[in-house]
Amino acid sequence: MLETKITIVGLGLIGGSFAQAIRPLVREITAVDLNQASLDAALADGTIDHGTTSFAVGVRSAELVVFAAPARTILSLLVELPSIKPTGCMVFDLGSTKQSICQLMEMLPPNFSSLGGHPMCGKEISGYESADSDLFHNATFILCPTSRTSPKLREIVDQLIAQTGANPLEMNPADHDRIVASVSHVPYILSALTTGLASQQAEDDERVWPVSSSGFRDTSRVSGSDPTMMMDILVTNKTAVKSQLYQVIAEMERIIKAMDMGDDNTVRDWLEQTQANYNTYYKAKHSNKK
Amino acid sequence: MLETKITIVGLGLIGGSFAQAIRPLVREITAVDLNQASLDAALADGTIDHGTTSFAVGVRSAELVVFAAPARTILSLLVELPSIKPTGCMVFDLGSTKQSICQLMEMLPPNFSSLGGHPMCGKEISGYESADSDLFHNATFILCPTSRTSPKLREIVDQLIAQTGANPLEMNPADHDRIVASVSHVPYILSALTTGLASQQAEDDERVWPVSSSGFRDTSRVSGSDPTMMMDILVTNKTAVKSQLYQVIAEMERIIKAMDMGDDNTVRDWLEQTQANYNTYYKAKHSNKK
Repeated sequence: MLETKITIVGLGLIGGSFAQAIRPLVREITAVDLNQASLDAALADGTIDHGTTSFAVGVRSAELVVFAAPARTILSLLVELPSIKPTGCMVFDLGSTKQSICQLMEMLPPNFSSLGGHPMCGKEISGYESADSDLFHNATFILCPTSRTSPKLREIVDQLIAQTGANPLEMNPADHDRIVASVSHVPYILSALTTGLASQQAEDDERVWPVSSSGFRDTSRVSGSDPTMMMDILVTNKTAVKSQLYQVIAEMERIIKAMDMGDDNTVRDWLEQTQANYNTYYKAKHSNKK
Repeated sequence: MLETKITIVGLGLIGGSFAQAIRPLVREITAVDLNQASLDAALADGTIDHGTTSFAVGVRSAELVVFAAPARTILSLLVELPSIKPTGCMVFDLGSTKQSICQLMEMLPPNFSSLGGHPMCGKEISGYESADSDLFHNATFILCPTSRTSPKLREIVDQLIAQTGANPLEMNPADHDRIVASVSHVPYILSALTTGLASQQAEDDERVWPVSSSGFRDTSRVSGSDPTMMMDILVTNKTAVKSQLYQVIAEMERIIKAMDMGDDNTVRDWLEQTQANYNTYYKAKHSNKK
């Protein structure tokens, strides 16, 4: 049993799932959320021991604060934390981007120990009612140590991650933000564009949705993601996202031009390379049983 | 029992699944495929009664020929058909695009009756070994009647579709190609770009695939599609695909510009509209139980 007093800030899909997953290991869990109904539900099902809508109240007696909120909410709460809790504590987060959060963690007073984290899992639906104690199972859990990551904090986080069934992977914040842009943030934008294009057609033609099939279902799914979370991602990971979007546009224009000129060889090479790339990805995931 | 002698041309994922689905209704099924192993497998499992690698041999005694091949293969076989089978027959197809195929169907000699079709279902894997008799179950099955669709052909096709468990939806070929571009062809291209971007990162960094999660899995899935099928789609539906890709690029540039200028309101409106659009789609599909 872990005796460290833990406060989870944000009891939505990720914070709620994390709380449920670590519950069997942790003696005392407090949650902070603006939504009283989420707190009530988590108190009722035994996931948390205390719930409060006040950040200051919730972190008062915490030894470890785990931030599970949209990235810019984490940033503003990190700024508030030292004045609310002058004695310091351990800080960990589950936010979607890492450079801005880890930079701010480095600037906390010396009595704060800090570690950045990002579990690579999610759903297109949000809120505590979608929480799932198995969400982290077999997921890659990225950890971004700071210069202020104490051995004790690292050990506790390793225990918590082991309890969730995730696989930790250490990485620097810049690599995190670049890689996650390419496997999550830009795919979200392309999914949003997929949904937007078909929605525009559907406004004038009721047959669009009946005609859509499993391909559309899958390519559009992540476009249902929470706008606040996505907004904070796009703001705090703007550089990587923008540069990769420009790469995508350049590639689109290359393919459109080849189609236009009847350059079948270029189009065919691209289609064959696409399938080969997909097969490489598919094999990499399946050889890892994930 | 349907006594009409049916020849299915192309025994891959779609033709093979169609053959398996209609098998209980149809007395005699012949299949044409260049892959002898597919024919052997379908003969062995009882899906077909005769198999041949020769188009001319396969259609000789057919009363109804069902084309289940990449769009340009269907076009070239439709051109050959009148000289191979001067007595005429009924013609139906399961091809991915409809304008060019239906135009050619209209030009067949008067002893040919014709009807265009497109079942809205598929998988990212291909070949007879992936065939599935349930593939069409609850799928929308688009029908594009030509001026040469005889009542008898229509009645037989209605019976076949009912047997597969699909829901027929009549549509003109131009509407088909425009709608399917927006829910299938352009989503494929955006999925291919998703796979391409991450693959480029993965070439230099082995951590990319472990970091990818369920969002990437779903948004990339259709990029595994058969390149020959996709090539024929892009060639025969170039106009609709290109115009919609230009729409997508314009929207991407609008969002990048808003990110660049720190115009959070525009970005937030887009994210909220995206989620609202997704929810509209989701409700439309679930109220249809599909």
